[in-house]
Amino acid sequence: MAKTTGGKVPLLNPILEKESEDYLYHFGIAKSSMDLPKLFGDIKYVCCGGSASRITVYAELFAKEIGVDHGKNWSNSDRYVMYKTGPVLWINHGMGVPSLSIMMVETIKLLHYAGASDVTIFRLGTSGGLGVEPGTVVVSSGALNGELEEFYIQYIMGKKVLRPAVLDQQLKEDLCGLAKQLNLPVETGKTLCADDFYEGQARLDGAFCEYTMKDKFEFLERLYQSGVRNIEMEATCFAAMSHRAGIRAAIVCVTLLNRMKGDQVDVEKSKYHEFETRPFKLVTAFIKQQLALPVHGKN
Amino acid sequence: MAKTTGGKVPLLNPILEKESEDYLYHFGIAKSSMDLPKLFGDIKYVCCGGSASRITVYAELFAKEIGVDHGKNWSNSDRYVMYKTGPVLWINHGMGVPSLSIMMVETIKLLHYAGASDVTIFRLGTSGGLGVEPGTVVVSSGALNGELEEFYIQYIMGKKVLRPAVLDQQLKEDLCGLAKQLNLPVETGKTLCADDFYEGQARLDGAFCEYTMKDKFEFLERLYQSGVRNIEMEATCFAAMSHRAGIRAAIVCVTLLNRMKGDQVDVEKSKYHEFETRPFKLVTAFIKQQLALPVHGKN
Repeated sequence: MAKTTGGKVPLLNPILEKESEDYLYHFGIAKSSMDLPKLFGDIKYVCCGGSASRITVYAELFAKEIGVDHGKNWSNSDRYVMYKTGPVLWINHGMGVPSLSIMMVETIKLLHYAGASDVTIFRLGTSGGLGVEPGTVVVSSGALNGELEEFYIQYIMGKKVLRPAVLDQQLKEDLCGLAKQLNLPVETGKTLCADDFYEGQARLDGAFCEYTMKDKFEFLERLYQSGVRNIEMEATCFAAMSHRAGIRAAIVCVTLLNRMKGDQVDVEKSKYHEFETRPFKLVTAFIKQQLALPVHGKN
Repeated sequence: MAKTTGGKVPLLNPILEKESEDYLYHFGIAKSSMDLPKLFGDIKYVCCGGSASRITVYAELFAKEIGVDHGKNWSNSDRYVMYKTGPVLWINHGMGVPSLSIMMVETIKLLHYAGASDVTIFRLGTSGGLGVEPGTVVVSSGALNGELEEFYIQYIMGKKVLRPAVLDQQLKEDLCGLAKQLNLPVETGKTLCADDFYEGQARLDGAFCEYTMKDKFEFLERLYQSGVRNIEMEATCFAAMSHRAGIRAAIVCVTLLNRMKGDQVDVEKSKYHEFETRPFKLVTAFIKQQLALPVHGKN
């Protein structure tokens, strides 16, 4: 965990701290190339999600809602997109922990160089549900790795290192309370972070399958009994890196199917799009409330 | 490894084999929605790489070179792009093993449904070099995970499963020989597949760093001594999944820096773009040779 920095996003790297220049390679941003404090110093919220096009749409929608311009894409690389709407930064993270980890590291460095303080980060995603109806918004209470432990697994210099994957419980409570006010179907529970979409999630519809349907349902039941309510592919790293940097974090994912009933996503298209916007509705309502802006859009 | 299927891409999933329908979710392609054998049955080569825009440019370039149209993007989802140029399929895989694993599974299923046979798959990427000059093309002889073993690590139903990460040695030799003919600087060696870009690669310029410069150089030296010549983020899964499906595979990555000398990529822009195209030059020259098409573009 970060030492006290007066709410400022810390740089927990004594070697880099001594360098005057840094290049955020996957954002294509050099520290010296722009006035980062002026441009990003007022950031209080970071919203991220897998898909670049979805994040772009969200940034545009939110900009319209709060009456600002969503401006340009600040990322100069084709790996990520980055938009700023007032005090909210929007960045996509791709699929899976490694892709997310790069976004997290470079975002933490960006916020540090900008002198941003008291930042909250949200992951807005889609997921497979466990024993919950499709369309349910799951606000994660914790994140499990593939060995079903609440740690982000790193390999550093040939050794396995475990980082506690911890999420902010008060923020989770506040989001759940607000979801109820907005009439959004909401659940809280643990999130399994898988490293693949098929075998890692006990799906029966991959290119390879060496287990039976019975094995699958036993595993899902075991997950359910340990409090898991959804499965995605980024939670442990997201929770652990935010926690390590002392940034308040929440994971808000809609479920697109109930894995207890099947493996394939077959939600009807317009319903799918409505489901997909539910994490956006909840998180932006929360942000607007915090900013003392009017919250519209009761569901 | 796949059982003998007369060269056809197998489906190693007895449960899915009994289903009449399948939806390749991240490509947005339903098995029944198009005539897959007609559209993709003639595929002999799959070329993949991280970035969607780079893969699009490569598909366009190759189409022009062999005098065909690169046609439409066959992926109906915003997660991946997919182009077909004659017998060559071009798909991006994003960054990191999880994102690549989804692309691999859905590509294997696509090729199986299409009845494609005798397929070779190439990963064309960028990487950090170890003791080799920037711009060197490294054709991987093997792939190591974060624990420095030649396995792809999966977590299935709470258990760690290790899949042998094996690459085709003859294909590697052929590619190295051709690179020499084309005057491309080429090396062969093992590739370390990291799960992140910073701590996982012993970089000193991440948001977090708990090791010293001495630790870093000792680790890199240890890697070099075990035959590692470059570091990227997809090799183990790429090698293991191809091997498991009986698909001939090669990893061809250009190095953008020599990690023995620094951590930041600071190649001058035009040089960077020339470096980036080297894996493309080598792999497409190989494919054209195999198709008995004229090989241009001596370096």
